[in-house]
Amino acid sequence: MSYILDGKRIVMGTCYYPEHWPERLWREDLRRMKETGIEVIRIAEFAWNKTEPREGEFTFDFFDRFLDLCEEEGMKVIFSTPTATPPVWLTEKYPETLNATVEGVLYRHGMRRHYNYNSPVYRGFSRRITGKLGEHYAPHPAIVGWQLDNELNCETDWFYSEADTAAFRVFLREKYGTVEALNEAWGTVFWNQDYTSFEEVYVPRRTVPGSTNPHQMLDYVRFVSQSARSFAREQAEILRRYLKPGDFITTNGLFGHLDNVELTRESLDFMTYDSYPNFAYTMNADFSDPRDLRDRKWSRNLTETRAVSPVFGIMEQQSGANGWNVSMEAPTPRPGQLTLWTMQSVAHGADYVSYFRWRTATMGTEIYWHGILDYSGRENRRLREVGEVAEKFKKLQPAAGARYRAEVAILEDYDNVWDAEIDVWHARVDKASRDALFAASQRTHTPVDHLYLDHAVPADLMKYKVLFYPHAAILTPERVKLLSDYAEAGGILVFACRTGYKDARGQCVTEKLPGLAAELSGADVTEYSFIGPDAEKVFVNWDGARFEAAVFADLLDALPGAEIEGRYEGEYFSGEGALVSCAAGRGRVYSYGSAFTEEAAGIFFEKLGVRDPYRDRLALPGEVELAVREKDGKEFAFLLNYAKTPQKVEFLRPAQDLFTGEALFGELTFPPFGVIAAEI
Amino acid sequence: MSYILDGKRIVMGTCYYPEHWPERLWREDLRRMKETGIEVIRIAEFAWNKTEPREGEFTFDFFDRFLDLCEEEGMKVIFSTPTATPPVWLTEKYPETLNATVEGVLYRHGMRRHYNYNSPVYRGFSRRITGKLGEHYAPHPAIVGWQLDNELNCETDWFYSEADTAAFRVFLREKYGTVEALNEAWGTVFWNQDYTSFEEVYVPRRTVPGSTNPHQMLDYVRFVSQSARSFAREQAEILRRYLKPGDFITTNGLFGHLDNVELTRESLDFMTYDSYPNFAYTMNADFSDPRDLRDRKWSRNLTETRAVSPVFGIMEQQSGANGWNVSMEAPTPRPGQLTLWTMQSVAHGADYVSYFRWRTATMGTEIYWHGILDYSGRENRRLREVGEVAEKFKKLQPAAGARYRAEVAILEDYDNVWDAEIDVWHARVDKASRDALFAASQRTHTPVDHLYLDHAVPADLMKYKVLFYPHAAILTPERVKLLSDYAEAGGILVFACRTGYKDARGQCVTEKLPGLAAELSGADVTEYSFIGPDAEKVFVNWDGARFEAAVFADLLDALPGAEIEGRYEGEYFSGEGALVSCAAGRGRVYSYGSAFTEEAAGIFFEKLGVRDPYRDRLALPGEVELAVREKDGKEFAFLLNYAKTPQKVEFLRPAQDLFTGEALFGELTFPPFGVIAAEI
Amino acid sequence: MSYILDGKRIVMGTCYYPEHWPERLWREDLRRMKETGIEVIRIAEFAWNKTEPREGEFTFDFFDRFLDLCEEEGMKVIFSTPTATPPVWLTEKYPETLNATVEGVLYRHGMRRHYNYNSPVYRGFSRRITGKLGEHYAPHPAIVGWQLDNELNCETDWFYSEADTAAFRVFLREKYGTVEALNEAWGTVFWNQDYTSFEEVYVPRRTVPGSTNPHQMLDYVRFVSQSARSFAREQAEILRRYLKPGDFITTNGLFGHLDNVELTRESLDFMTYDSYPNFAYTMNADFSDPRDLRDRKWSRNLTETRAVSPVFGIMEQQSGANGWNVSMEAPTPRPGQLTLWTMQSVAHGADYVSYFRWRTATMGTEIYWHGILDYSGRENRRLREVGEVAEKFKKLQPAAGARYRAEVAILEDYDNVWDAEIDVWHARVDKASRDALFAASQRTHTPVDHLYLDHAVPADLMKYKVLFYPHAAILTPERVKLLSDYAEAGGILVFACRTGYKDARGQCVTEKLPGLAAELSGADVTEYSFIGPDAEKVFVNWDGARFEAAVFADLLDALPGAEIEGRYEGEYFSGEGALVSCAAGRGRVYSYGSAFTEEAAGIFFEKLGVRDPYRDRLALPGEVELAVREKDGKEFAFLLNYAKTPQKVEFLRPAQDLFTGEALFGELTFPPFGVIAAEI
Repeated sequence: MSYILDGKRIVMGTCYYPEHWPERLWREDLRRMKETGIEVIRIAEFAWNKTEPREGEFTFDFFDRFLDLCEEEGMKVIFSTPTATPPVWLTEKYPETLNATVEGVLYRHGMRRHYNYNSPVYRGFSRRITGKLGEHYAPHPAIVGWQLDNELNCETDWFYSEADTAAFRVFLREKYGTVEALNEAWGTVFWNQDYTSFEEVYVPRRTVPGSTNPHQMLDYVRFVSQSARSFAREQAEILRRYLKPGDFITTNGLFGHLDNVELTRESLDFMTYDSYPNFAYTMNADFSDPRDLRDRKWSRNLTETRAVSPVFGIMEQQSGANGWNVSMEAPTPRPGQLTLWTMQSVAHGADYVSYFRWRTATMGTEIYWHGILDYSGRENRRLREVGEVAEKFKKLQPAAGARYRAEVAILEDYDNVWDAEIDVWHARVDKASRDALFAASQRTHTPVDHLYLDHAVPADLMKYKVLFYPHAAILTPERVKLLSDYAEAGGILVFACRTGYKDARGQCVTEKLPGLAAELSGADVTEYSFIGPDAEKVFVNWDGARFEAAVFADLLDALPGAEIEGRYEGEYFSGEGALVSCAAGRGRVYSYGSAFTEEAAGIFFEKLGVRDPYRDRLALPGEVELAVREKDGKEFAFLLNYAKTPQKVEFLRPAQDLFTGEALFGELTFPPFGVIAAEI
Repeated sequence: MSYILDGKRIVMGTCYYPEHWPERLWREDLRRMKETGIEVIRIAEFAWNKTEPREGEFTFDFFDRFLDLCEEEGMKVIFSTPTATPPVWLTEKYPETLNATVEGVLYRHGMRRHYNYNSPVYRGFSRRITGKLGEHYAPHPAIVGWQLDNELNCETDWFYSEADTAAFRVFLREKYGTVEALNEAWGTVFWNQDYTSFEEVYVPRRTVPGSTNPHQMLDYVRFVSQSARSFAREQAEILRRYLKPGDFITTNGLFGHLDNVELTRESLDFMTYDSYPNFAYTMNADFSDPRDLRDRKWSRNLTETRAVSPVFGIMEQQSGANGWNVSMEAPTPRPGQLTLWTMQSVAHGADYVSYFRWRTATMGTEIYWHGILDYSGRENRRLREVGEVAEKFKKLQPAAGARYRAEVAILEDYDNVWDAEIDVWHARVDKASRDALFAASQRTHTPVDHLYLDHAVPADLMKYKVLFYPHAAILTPERVKLLSDYAEAGGILVFACRTGYKDARGQCVTEKLPGLAAELSGADVTEYSFIGPDAEKVFVNWDGARFEAAVFADLLDALPGAEIEGRYEGEYFSGEGALVSCAAGRGRVYSYGSAFTEEAAGIFFEKLGVRDPYRDRLALPGEVELAVREKDGKEFAFLLNYAKTPQKVEFLRPAQDLFTGEALFGELTFPPFGVIAAEI
Repeated sequence: MSYILDGKRIVMGTCYYPEHWPERLWREDLRRMKETGIEVIRIAEFAWNKTEPREGEFTFDFFDRFLDLCEEEGMKVIFSTPTATPPVWLTEKYPETLNATVEGVLYRHGMRRHYNYNSPVYRGFSRRITGKLGEHYAPHPAIVGWQLDNELNCETDWFYSEADTAAFRVFLREKYGTVEALNEAWGTVFWNQDYTSFEEVYVPRRTVPGSTNPHQMLDYVRFVSQSARSFAREQAEILRRYLKPGDFITTNGLFGHLDNVELTRESLDFMTYDSYPNFAYTMNADFSDPRDLRDRKWSRNLTETRAVSPVFGIMEQQSGANGWNVSMEAPTPRPGQLTLWTMQSVAHGADYVSYFRWRTATMGTEIYWHGILDYSGRENRRLREVGEVAEKFKKLQPAAGARYRAEVAILEDYDNVWDAEIDVWHARVDKASRDALFAASQRTHTPVDHLYLDHAVPADLMKYKVLFYPHAAILTPERVKLLSDYAEAGGILVFACRTGYKDARGQCVTEKLPGLAAELSGADVTEYSFIGPDAEKVFVNWDGARFEAAVFADLLDALPGAEIEGRYEGEYFSGEGALVSCAAGRGRVYSYGSAFTEEAAGIFFEKLGVRDPYRDRLALPGEVELAVREKDGKEFAFLLNYAKTPQKVEFLRPAQDLFTGEALFGELTFPPFGVIAAEI
């Protein structure tokens, strides 16, 4: 049984850097942590030189001393592989281990994450240090788990070194076998790009306008993901040789160009997320849009994390102001925000929350990435607030292991996520709809999950009344089958514009649109267009419910058996079909011809019967997020007030406050940044 | 006699890529084209690998099959040299054929136009493939003409490869003979830049602030132009060995750093233009200025094309939404816009209009550069509209070969065009005036031509009542002589500020300003300044007509024989001369001290008697463009409504609608994006 | 005795380029200068090829002829070393002499300042040409002084060549001795950056996010400064071997990454400044903030110059429009502005003003950097205005040698200046406060000096009633001692937020804040934060005086003996200490917890008794700057009207107009851009 995320306890941790502080401070620090309620620390993720100060010289005494002290003081430890920051002796001697810009300029020593995943030399060093650390430290009784590397694909998720090109060729040979098959997949007949040999293929390089073949790009991003996964997997496999029973392996995410679902399945016991909602308040942030959800958008990231790893922790939870010396500067969290953001994590399913970091670093790039304590370590407001959170955690133990509850899921898959990165048509609709669905779910108190269709089995889909798969440009027969089975079995599936016009290679299909989705959806896209930058507003009228369309318009006809439920109003689209629905077994499939606005999403929730499922129990203003975790038939509601003003909420049925134990009924006001946790 | 542009017929074409589609679709496609009214297709411009799949291996069967089918189906073909997209086997083996960034980073395979014009190796390949294609295909009866390369200098018109430096040195040796002469021309004494040998000279390289010697830059741009011309000329000369009688050579433009007039004279039978007015509606377009002319600005490009090649075609006419996968995304043309933009081309003198492209590509960077048909090839609104245009073309045949009629020309010359690129003082006034003159010509219904003075003979000038030569910073004695002769013979010539202060080297003259124009213009520039960013508005009062000055103010005195006709009002310029005129033989020369606003340009048109020459026949709102083509004493008026709203026009004298055959008289309303063609 | 800056005369000069003009113009030019009132010219700073046209070939005849002519015409000359623009024969043969981008791309020939200071080869060339020129020309009677190089660190103050890395390693070895000490100073334990050898250390190179270790950066900037100083010093030492008695050495500044104080002490007789206030009016300037001080901000630069060199000259004073061919375009100075800006220089302490340049260059990058005369050399408005200034200079002779008078100084030191460049937290508060203090000093007519604490002795501080040291992030014991002694002796010292949290390495201190300033200031920073971008306005209430806080808030407690004088109002800071004061001997130390707004600075001036010290003699509007120079008990007031509108001023006591000799009393109106100089 894992020490954290055991389904029984919600545990607090922090990140600690023994190498940054005089050894005489260690014991005092550990004791103060324990007094505050901290049970676990993550260490050593940037400390390669502490164990291999010169090539092939291994020294273990530093962390031996520290771990023994942890054991004495009853502190549990997550140990890390140190590969995120290679030593200068390594990169100077073996520059082929470095990552590079698209123009081939090597990234040099002085920051972090400047290595590439594919250098055989770096892989060798990675394997050796992982083995040495695993072998030596894994048996230590203070250790409860391991972190692989640190923030894989953070800083950059583009890799352009020569080692990457060599590995890309291997990847492509394995995928395509022949260069003719690669040519076919990449549509190289366009602009005369045919390859005559794999040796002519490279990771993307500098081209005249700065972009390159989109099918190559899609494969390249898949390759980057596989490279990162393979790098992590190699470490995980080595560590598992040494792990004590019950000890876990994790890494901290989430970053781009990485199939985090597959990474987790292959190499991790669970994913941990690094949650910094204060990024919403950096000094250069744009506050012109009053509808912007700001720190509340981190709920979307937490939803993503839950989709990757249903059981998850927070490896780094914001506890102070953020900032590198040259960028990302932000104010100190206001009183209550540290609690709010911690509870945001817990509300979404985190049973482990570890604050970044105990003391603020006095040197290096992150001197402004504040921890709980300032440079001096003096007692302060944030430490007091962490202590109060620890008290609250005690009251929350009944909720440990409870699962977040949603009737709606938003589907995604990595093919489409990555396609939208290299395709502005896809990106525009995708961004609009995903933002709108999230905003509507927040403000209408309609909890949603995310679900990776490319990693789903039928049972995963069947959990939900309604599935939104907004702009699945790329469809595959397998995924259509999953969706079809879901609808047949009674599910409600919603497509939106631009569905099914690409295949898995990113090439456009020559079938009528929506391509592979045509039969299932009963929709026929007769024409399509962006809604022009000079266009009047375009609306959709769905049986009298009228809402604004966004970004794009598929003009829809209904195939036999389907019907047009909504029509456009505006531009030359007026009267054309905007929403088609089609029965599918016991379920129904909707094809919406545009992208979602927040208003549109709210109307879909309402029409499809999933809006605000707790409306009979709670009356909440839009400023308050509602999240519900469920376990053994008990429902634990988290109410989170992100506003700087007090908010009124009403309990329509009696409930019990988990923090105070008191009964909750009728209207009550809770303060700015306030949190209510209640069994409802 | 050429198949197209024969002065007798207006012909419709399209661009087709047989290599993109299954061979089984070819015949069906050709037949559908013919049914629609398409007579000609352009092919093969990106198909090098179809004829030389490996170095020195030539295969002709692919296009043999296709051309035979065209012959069977009665489709005429424009064949292309494939040099815009070199094969990867070529650029990998001979990287010296690649173009580079100013920092020397090579542009790599994966897009297009990544080669340089000066690599002897590339020249060899270009000559060989051109010869092979010419020899084999030119006799084919389906072929009616050839396109050289594709869009020379598109993507980039900067070349920085080592081959370019080598060729630049040859160019300079030929131009200057000695390095001392080069030093003199480039003013190298400034900042100690003297060269002691041609081997020390390079194309521009990276400098501290990113720019370099302006006189070197001017020569460098001339060199780029000569390189492109020489590259094209070599292909043309080879092809002419094989051309059937009547077959033509063209290329598709217009792009920068290229003397298109000379290119056309040397190598082409005529220029074709690629017209994409929908660029005005890309999703990131700025719509904050209601006076912006948007798609109507393409009329200016067409005017430019006419200046290069009085008889011209459109090789690529927009037929669908545009967009690369990563940029330039735009909506689908609205109903009627395809017709409007086609007729815009015809109105300005195009007798051949070829739509880009028949089917939309399903792969590669241009999957969103939509053709007439979408990916599926299904019948659609755009195909129907193309068919309707074909019907209209039939009615337009009397206008075939008719010449665009203008009493006013705007002069330009490549020296000044290129100087304005590397000189912000010149660029600011030039852009302002050229935009204003064009806008005024559009909104006052005063047709204008462009005229390249550097390629003109006296007769070219004498066609016009009024010539504007707004900011001829660079003047030469030859050009002043041309202008002087024009004025002496009764022409009206208008200079504006910043005239004549540079010589052909781009060095400033030490004569009093306006330098070589002083005698002809009778103006004396006593002082000059930008109108500061904090300045109050400055006006010019010309005999009671008061209009705003723009950007710059030359303060003018009149030399003996000249007179001050207008004075400034505003700033410390008040009372100073703003407009001087001077008789010159039977003509008159005006020197305007500022740059034009649209209002100023309209007043000049009026005062000089050329505004709205059809005002006795047509009363038109500003939203409607008027273009008139004339042939054998008949005048064919094109009225083009660019607005999204209906517009009222009034025929003050009876005319005949070419499309309907009906009489036109009095007021009538025509719809958004409507077109009227009438014999007036 | 130096010819200029002798304390007895205010002298006018200009910059001349004999190499740009036909030799026949020289005498005429010199005579016209003399007639205008110009006594001195600066020459030869970009003329290496005139004396060493090929490696090792030296020719002196060109400047011999010119200097002899100067001697004949009575013109005095400042000669320059030519190292700012190396010949192409040098950089082509020895590319290791070039500077490079951070990615290692060499800056090439074609502009200026493309060399690096540390190449042993370039140093050799620099020494040799300096020696040759000194030996040959220094005895010439026309010469009165020398300029070293030209605008050291202009264009770029970043150096990334291989020679710089080699020199950086030497610099670090000397500073740290061992790599362990370097690791300690640079905090390399953070992110595993430890070096094992100096050979692993480089000047900054390309890293993933583009920045690198901040402590390395701080040392690197110090290294750049030392490199430039060492380069200049080498030239100065050589020249001093040849200088005639009384002749001086200077250079023209001020540019970044350069300890100009130390440079001046080591190598110069005095600093000269290049003053171009018209930069405030470039065509792209932003005029949205009506409070922007525009050209008046050059008074701050002049204050900086005075801090570097109490006796200073202007080597380049703007006389015409500025602009390179590709950038920085600006209008011609309006009538009166040339006089205004000249008098701005004089008012701040310049006794030598040399106009850039006599004639405008007709070739090269600076064809728009206008001099007094335009290209033709014809007489013009600017020349007349220069002549009028010369007349005014005659009337100003009593003020020659008078010192600018201020009761307030703003402290700075290069450690903190450079730290603020690489640290956004520091930069934000520093920029806000320095802008505000300057603006308040201008608009409240409170003259201020700048003072470099790192180069100060106790007597320097004691000249001032009040010292502001706004955000001394970095403090050292020595500097605290200086400040403490000042306060003990009766001075008033004002700190603001973010004081003392770093040591000289740029590492944060672990003492309670404000660190080394805690004891002296009596302040205790219990918490701190940016004032968030979404925050309500925060005010400080200081005994009823209420003003807005800016950017940041230190929440302050008072240590024993100190007291809280002001408190915050707003945000969660309300009620917390915002201003602490503490007696220190006969003086007092104030700790202000935020950054200054202009309003706050004005209130500090008032409360501390230094606001508008001439209020009993002059009543002035905010638009008018007041500067007072004092000599032998006489006070010379300069009133400068930067506005485009007439301004009313009132002399409350009788004074005498220096230009007219008339009495001044009561209210008078002076015109736009007007200047009054009066003995008050």
